[in-house]
Amino acid sequence: MIDKKHIEYLKNIVGEDDIKTDKIHLRAYSYDATREHFYPDAVVFPENEEEISKILKYCNEEKIAIIPRGAGSGFTGGALPVNGGIVLALEKHMNKILEIDEKDMVAVVQPGVVNRKLQEEVEKKGLFYPPDPASMDYSTIGGNVSENAGGMRAAKYGLTKDYVMSLKAVLPNGDIIRAGKRTIKDVAGYNIAGILIASEGTLAVITEITLKLLPKPKIKKTYMGIFKNVEDAMNAVYKSLASGAMPVAMEFMDSLVVKALREKLGVDLPEWAGALLIGDVDGNVEEEINYQLGILENSFRENGCKEFKVAKDEKEANEIWFARRNASQSITIYGSKKINEDISVPRSRLPDALREINNISKKYGLVVPCFGHAGDGNIHVNVMVDKNNEEEIKKGYKAVEEIFKLVVDMGGTLSGEHGIGLSKAPFMKLAFNEAELNLFKRIKEAFDPNGILNPGKMGI
Amino acid sequence: MIDKKHIEYLKNIVGEDDIKTDKIHLRAYSYDATREHFYPDAVVFPENEEEISKILKYCNEEKIAIIPRGAGSGFTGGALPVNGGIVLALEKHMNKILEIDEKDMVAVVQPGVVNRKLQEEVEKKGLFYPPDPASMDYSTIGGNVSENAGGMRAAKYGLTKDYVMSLKAVLPNGDIIRAGKRTIKDVAGYNIAGILIASEGTLAVITEITLKLLPKPKIKKTYMGIFKNVEDAMNAVYKSLASGAMPVAMEFMDSLVVKALREKLGVDLPEWAGALLIGDVDGNVEEEINYQLGILENSFRENGCKEFKVAKDEKEANEIWFARRNASQSITIYGSKKINEDISVPRSRLPDALREINNISKKYGLVVPCFGHAGDGNIHVNVMVDKNNEEEIKKGYKAVEEIFKLVVDMGGTLSGEHGIGLSKAPFMKLAFNEAELNLFKRIKEAFDPNGILNPGKMGI
Repeated sequence: MIDKKHIEYLKNIVGEDDIKTDKIHLRAYSYDATREHFYPDAVVFPENEEEISKILKYCNEEKIAIIPRGAGSGFTGGALPVNGGIVLALEKHMNKILEIDEKDMVAVVQPGVVNRKLQEEVEKKGLFYPPDPASMDYSTIGGNVSENAGGMRAAKYGLTKDYVMSLKAVLPNGDIIRAGKRTIKDVAGYNIAGILIASEGTLAVITEITLKLLPKPKIKKTYMGIFKNVEDAMNAVYKSLASGAMPVAMEFMDSLVVKALREKLGVDLPEWAGALLIGDVDGNVEEEINYQLGILENSFRENGCKEFKVAKDEKEANEIWFARRNASQSITIYGSKKINEDISVPRSRLPDALREINNISKKYGLVVPCFGHAGDGNIHVNVMVDKNNEEEIKKGYKAVEEIFKLVVDMGGTLSGEHGIGLSKAPFMKLAFNEAELNLFKRIKEAFDPNGILNPGKMGI
Repeated sequence: MIDKKHIEYLKNIVGEDDIKTDKIHLRAYSYDATREHFYPDAVVFPENEEEISKILKYCNEEKIAIIPRGAGSGFTGGALPVNGGIVLALEKHMNKILEIDEKDMVAVVQPGVVNRKLQEEVEKKGLFYPPDPASMDYSTIGGNVSENAGGMRAAKYGLTKDYVMSLKAVLPNGDIIRAGKRTIKDVAGYNIAGILIASEGTLAVITEITLKLLPKPKIKKTYMGIFKNVEDAMNAVYKSLASGAMPVAMEFMDSLVVKALREKLGVDLPEWAGALLIGDVDGNVEEEINYQLGILENSFRENGCKEFKVAKDEKEANEIWFARRNASQSITIYGSKKINEDISVPRSRLPDALREINNISKKYGLVVPCFGHAGDGNIHVNVMVDKNNEEEIKKGYKAVEEIFKLVVDMGGTLSGEHGIGLSKAPFMKLAFNEAELNLFKRIKEAFDPNGILNPGKMGI
């Protein structure tokens, strides 16, 4: 338990109303999307960069842990106060869009801005912020930057890191820094913004983010390819892209997901459907859309696609996307607990990866439905278990470990977009050699010598 | 001077033929595009990662400086052995394209591969590697990564960093690391590739680079807008982009460049021409090209463009590009020495920046022709002086310092693509506060505690 005098000191910085130590608040800030619980000693709601600087400076001197937090929607426990400490909650005050500049095509936001809100505001001005994690209705830009969030549109438009032009941040010692510029090009000094992205709140507290925006494409169309089996669909993914298609999204669902969608939600899909590929293409002129759809249809059909549909209107587009949007929910028919991992492999390894995951699921006698962002090689693997069956849960985690080994052997990664946090920390040794892990530690020390920022995360 | 025993030790690693200490070699490796000379103690040509690891391990223990070098085409002295030491020349042996994979759409190369060579090889397979620095005929991918090279196409396609998926590198202690994966998404561990990009060989020696490739667009057309004055052209730049245009390039030349092109090279341009904007648009269908050209023409004309041309064929396209390609050469009519800086500002500040640069040139009585990559806010500012007039050279550098101050005040950067190296190191204090400079130092120490890698660079 943290000493009372520290709470008093912090109260002087943020004011009575913006520090909480009551049970209800501590509970509310004890969990994230992993549903694991770790109680903080206090929750602080800073109002600006100066307050954050003072808080960090003090906590650094007193060696008190600080856990920065956006919406707490992460899947790997990145926002959990594993050893207590102060949760620095940024969603209450630091949630303003400071500027949307149509001339420079940039947005400047505080970390607590919700992704969806930013999308809506920039689109009102004919602009476009592509990163759209599934959590976009509630996750914050600060969290998106800290995890380098991806999303459906990553196949064409890339990740959060591709849109971060500059950051302001507070270092653990209270120093306020700017990293990067409001310019497309900037090669002066080390790329500090680059290393803060995806650092999961372990290096600095991000206080302001300048994002690159694009002109919003004028037209969007939705397609769906229905395949007899997963292998065909996975071949179609990389072969259609290698043929020159640049779809906004290419989302995948396997036969277990298709079955669940039919049985649980009555989605109208053929009996023989063993895999789906769903996505959008976009552009400014009809002919570009038709060019893209032409490549996709040809390539899909050459790889065993039995039915290729293009939505005629928004209603049909929504019907197609309904399947993908409800994939996660539908598979609960297979088990009351889902161990959800977001592996990523080079796209041409997708057929092998899915085959091997199927073999692992058979070996352990577990059901493992898969879906996700096939267009960028990122698959959400769901090991389904009975939440009341400890034996089965253990088996589930063993299967996950085997899947991670497989993925790393294929040149893939433990996490495409969810981060390492707490949940994947034990597997870092599978993915990195000692030299790499040592380098991570030295970088951590360069930023945070006392180890006060988000301790216990990323296996560092 | 380095001890003989060190040379003997290194000879055992790389073999007799791959270490040189004779005068001719030392001279050949003493300079880069800055034309400044600093002699190394030896030049070593490693054959592979293992040799580099052994060399670094030894030099780290013995505290001998190592200067990694590609083609030596840098404009800021990044490859210069300012205090002697060993030049690690990567262009002799480590110049292989290891793989061009059409399925995953990636290329894997050694650092010494020349940019142009890679472009040609991937285009044979219908693929596309966008970064095209002006030095692409001779500069190497390793150098491009170390400086985060841009180029003409950056307006639409971004910089080298946007194409680096993963790197292999050797740390000063000899440790071999991999950073990043051959996957579009990867958020496991700190973004080491991100910080190695643009680190100018001061943190690690890059030994292998995996690059993302795109499908090659089917059609390209070249446009030129002729304006009466610079201010109109600079307004047209950001207004056309904000209107939704996404040209591959939008290159700019001011009235001094236009005059030089006419007088020195007989380029056929109207008497009244005060500024040019030149570039390409690309796409897969004619209609997209026309859509892009339509926005550009409208937006240009709304901002005072008096003549808008689209090249009918490749011959006309080459004629238009001739002006841009020879801009740098033509301006030598204004002085025998050119102090060439590559500042970058937010695009909407371009009109102000050019006006202020003109004021500074008047104040110092110097001619300062400007051209460059206006589409991304990156301008090459050329302060022309008489190479035999020391007084004028001094004045030139004073003008440069004033320009840097102006740019930083406008939220811009000292360098859009040339790097800091030696030439811009004295100006780092203009652009960064003490906290930021300290952080750079701590990062340097995390990688290179003995300071053996490319010492004296980046003001660190």
